[in-house]
Amino acid sequence: MDSKEFKEAAISSIEEITNYYETIPTRRVVSSVSPGYLRTLLPQSAPQDPEPWSSIQSDIESKIMPGITHWQHPNFMAFFPASSSYPGMLGEMWSAALNGAAFNWICSPAVTELETIVLDWLAKSLGLPERYLSTGKTGGGGVIHGTASEAIVTVLVAARDKYLRESTAHLEGGGKEEEREDEMMRKRSRLVALASGATHSSAKKAALIAGVRFHPIPVGAETGWALTGRAVGDAIEELRARGLEPFFLAATMGTTDTCAVDDFGGICSAVRELAPGRAGEDGRAGMWVHVDAAYAGVSLMLPEVREMAPLEALLAGEKDEGCPVLSINTNMHKWGLVNFDCSTLWVMNRTHLTDYLTVMPAYLRNQYSDSGLVTDYRDWQIPLGRRFRSLKLWFVLRTYGIKGLQEHFRKGIRLGELFASLVTEEGGKGRDLFEIVTGPAFALTVFRVKGKDREERNRRTKEVYERVNAGGEIYITSTVLGGDFAIRVVASTPFVEEEHVRNAFAILVRTAEEVAKEEGGSG
Amino acid sequence: MDSKEFKEAAISSIEEITNYYETIPTRRVVSSVSPGYLRTLLPQSAPQDPEPWSSIQSDIESKIMPGITHWQHPNFMAFFPASSSYPGMLGEMWSAALNGAAFNWICSPAVTELETIVLDWLAKSLGLPERYLSTGKTGGGGVIHGTASEAIVTVLVAARDKYLRESTAHLEGGGKEEEREDEMMRKRSRLVALASGATHSSAKKAALIAGVRFHPIPVGAETGWALTGRAVGDAIEELRARGLEPFFLAATMGTTDTCAVDDFGGICSAVRELAPGRAGEDGRAGMWVHVDAAYAGVSLMLPEVREMAPLEALLAGEKDEGCPVLSINTNMHKWGLVNFDCSTLWVMNRTHLTDYLTVMPAYLRNQYSDSGLVTDYRDWQIPLGRRFRSLKLWFVLRTYGIKGLQEHFRKGIRLGELFASLVTEEGGKGRDLFEIVTGPAFALTVFRVKGKDREERNRRTKEVYERVNAGGEIYITSTVLGGDFAIRVVASTPFVEEEHVRNAFAILVRTAEEVAKEEGGSG
Repeated sequence: MDSKEFKEAAISSIEEITNYYETIPTRRVVSSVSPGYLRTLLPQSAPQDPEPWSSIQSDIESKIMPGITHWQHPNFMAFFPASSSYPGMLGEMWSAALNGAAFNWICSPAVTELETIVLDWLAKSLGLPERYLSTGKTGGGGVIHGTASEAIVTVLVAARDKYLRESTAHLEGGGKEEEREDEMMRKRSRLVALASGATHSSAKKAALIAGVRFHPIPVGAETGWALTGRAVGDAIEELRARGLEPFFLAATMGTTDTCAVDDFGGICSAVRELAPGRAGEDGRAGMWVHVDAAYAGVSLMLPEVREMAPLEALLAGEKDEGCPVLSINTNMHKWGLVNFDCSTLWVMNRTHLTDYLTVMPAYLRNQYSDSGLVTDYRDWQIPLGRRFRSLKLWFVLRTYGIKGLQEHFRKGIRLGELFASLVTEEGGKGRDLFEIVTGPAFALTVFRVKGKDREERNRRTKEVYERVNAGGEIYITSTVLGGDFAIRVVASTPFVEEEHVRNAFAILVRTAEEVAKEEGGSG
Repeated sequence: MDSKEFKEAAISSIEEITNYYETIPTRRVVSSVSPGYLRTLLPQSAPQDPEPWSSIQSDIESKIMPGITHWQHPNFMAFFPASSSYPGMLGEMWSAALNGAAFNWICSPAVTELETIVLDWLAKSLGLPERYLSTGKTGGGGVIHGTASEAIVTVLVAARDKYLRESTAHLEGGGKEEEREDEMMRKRSRLVALASGATHSSAKKAALIAGVRFHPIPVGAETGWALTGRAVGDAIEELRARGLEPFFLAATMGTTDTCAVDDFGGICSAVRELAPGRAGEDGRAGMWVHVDAAYAGVSLMLPEVREMAPLEALLAGEKDEGCPVLSINTNMHKWGLVNFDCSTLWVMNRTHLTDYLTVMPAYLRNQYSDSGLVTDYRDWQIPLGRRFRSLKLWFVLRTYGIKGLQEHFRKGIRLGELFASLVTEEGGKGRDLFEIVTGPAFALTVFRVKGKDREERNRRTKEVYERVNAGGEIYITSTVLGGDFAIRVVASTPFVEEEHVRNAFAILVRTAEEVAKEEGGSG
């Protein structure tokens, strides 16, 4: 494919892509293909000879599109959104054009420097304290990871090795290296990563990868499914009494089930008191608190969100020296209009990563890295190579401006409130079908179908949930909270408007009425 | 940005991107900016109000381009290539358009199914045995990871937990669970991952992440820097004698320093004999051999490469049941014309990953995953979400055809041979400046400047290397082999032609002559 053929192919693709975006609402939101559908449509092997672009492009509509679940569909209200935008796509286009494996600064200084700068921009726009900026006095800074899962495994591994090194610091030198090694190995088997039972599954997977124990602290309806400082304190003491060593805690702003916000103020106090950030003769070091704000964190761009009590504590209530929140992560690729993947992670001190993740073979050495004056992001992450992902973030921030993004986040919150109000008010219309379980919070409402007891509620909620998804007009997901089945509706995809929220609610009402009627009950 | 504005921005970007590709040779291959250059050119914060695309696009040329090291430049002969192609770019464009976080099959069945199919296509075209195909009887299959680093940490973690579970299987049931847990913790501290000293640094980093010991087996010039079966056998026995438990070995096709190919036949025999794949009362389980063919593996598309002795052993010499090579990885984003990132990993049995990497919270459950009939690639990798990366691989395979890719790989090998022949023959022209250290192998030649002793050789080689890179006409990298400084020249980027290889050699000769003259020696 030469430049001329590429131009034609690209222009034709852009035509088709804009056409796709304009007609998304006419498509079925969830794919209805059966497992294995594609194998029957494609050859057994790659072609020996080149094929023209026209045959490839026509296969996209005929063979690929039927197998696509349309995440940008205004009726996609499942999971959390993976929002797309035109400037985000332009970012991917340019990133592909400037293709390279920019693992070191010199491999393309712009890749590293733009990332550092736009992560400072983003941190400022979210109101993060100065300690997470690359220019702050604690030596912090941001990095783009692929996903929140990669971010959490990276910080958890660094936290593990930081804890092991610091908690055995009293054995450093004086010929005690072997004793220290043994002590580290002994400790390793006793390390525990903490999180709440509502923390995203990536925390458990990160502990699995790092080879440490994982302890989910139960949370319940009484705290709005949020983790409290007291629960954290109790867990630390209980684990220590069992001879274990808590070294890491993932706290969440916006849990996956319910968008709960953990009590950061209380958690930080508990950790500061029980696990202060100093290594002592007692063989304990400080704990690393990581804040997983994967979905909801981007809405910190709104002053009214920053003023929520637990968030105020996160953003301002800590002195740099004593703050145990060593890392914060949010995904601009969820609600933030940056095409997947763009998971932004900030650390309070970059040596917390680089001291534990740096491996330097001869073939990667260069005068710039040796000088210590540049950032080599490979030491902030698991992979070596990296894409030029900051371009799409830069394009989105500039194309929308902070005001445009704020407007987008406010729309999601407003539509979430609308949906929740429909659920609440619907009892007034002579139909008392639903009840709110949690929310609205960050555009997420969790609710269930009413019933005379838990068994009936769960059966009906599940039935409604399954029928609605089988119908294919809207796509929603479910969860289980303390044994109760519940439906999650998220109203923060880019193209969702009031009409779609009302329509989704009407479908839910219709389906719940059907189910109630069939069951012969009043619902 | 609406559809109309996007079309204009995209068409204008495509115009500029093709223009960039056509004028790459006129640019300086390595960026010459100083650390921190970009911060002085950009505002301190993100804009509050939207900016038009025209201001963003003009910043690309004026602010970003100076900080780009041009990996597609025909004079880029450093590291290994990160090759770009027009169909690869179209793949990124479509992947961004069909944006989603396809962690489960139902999240977009096409994302999963196309990946499975094109990885079967690719495996067949590389001549991989049927056991790595999704359709083979061992239940294998392929997956696209971001990088070889992510692939190796994923298989190493699975190997660790597989070994721990299998080697304690005799303690399963009968109320011995606590004893088993203790035994696993005890074993964990004794596990060792093996590799050769020439294995890519990602193996060491993977061991660090997984929290296990790493043992590099020394290799030297006498085996062409390749790992032998005998060295592996000796290492296993020596480690066991020290009370340690080798559970994983990374063998390499095409090491980073020299493109050495390990002795797969000998390694497999040694592992089969000393660490057969069965769990026994002796508390040992089989070892997992992973083949890292990150750079060179794609050239298995050439029959003449497959016929090389150690590769024949890898591809055909093993019965499925006894083969310890449980995983193979190669990066189509290096030599393979698929834009970064596209690291293809195959396993002989997919349960070797899914049994150890699956975490299933309520909010990810769905009828398709529960049915067991579909692949959920999230259980084959660290991240949860994933991009539609198989599109770009599909587009490249179809646009070039296997024949077109074979031609591309043959060109690289031929140009590598040309460069090495220039180094070798150059003595005949009255200048006896250089000597080959290794190669040519897979387009890589490693050589050094001659000198009367090691000290002089190293000093002159380093001086030539640094001056050439400072000159900025070509970009090369160096390595250190057994204490000897050496220069690596790779001739496999997409746009490199004979004239660029001859030109690079002329620059090296000129620089070496200068250095020799200044030193007053004969060179």
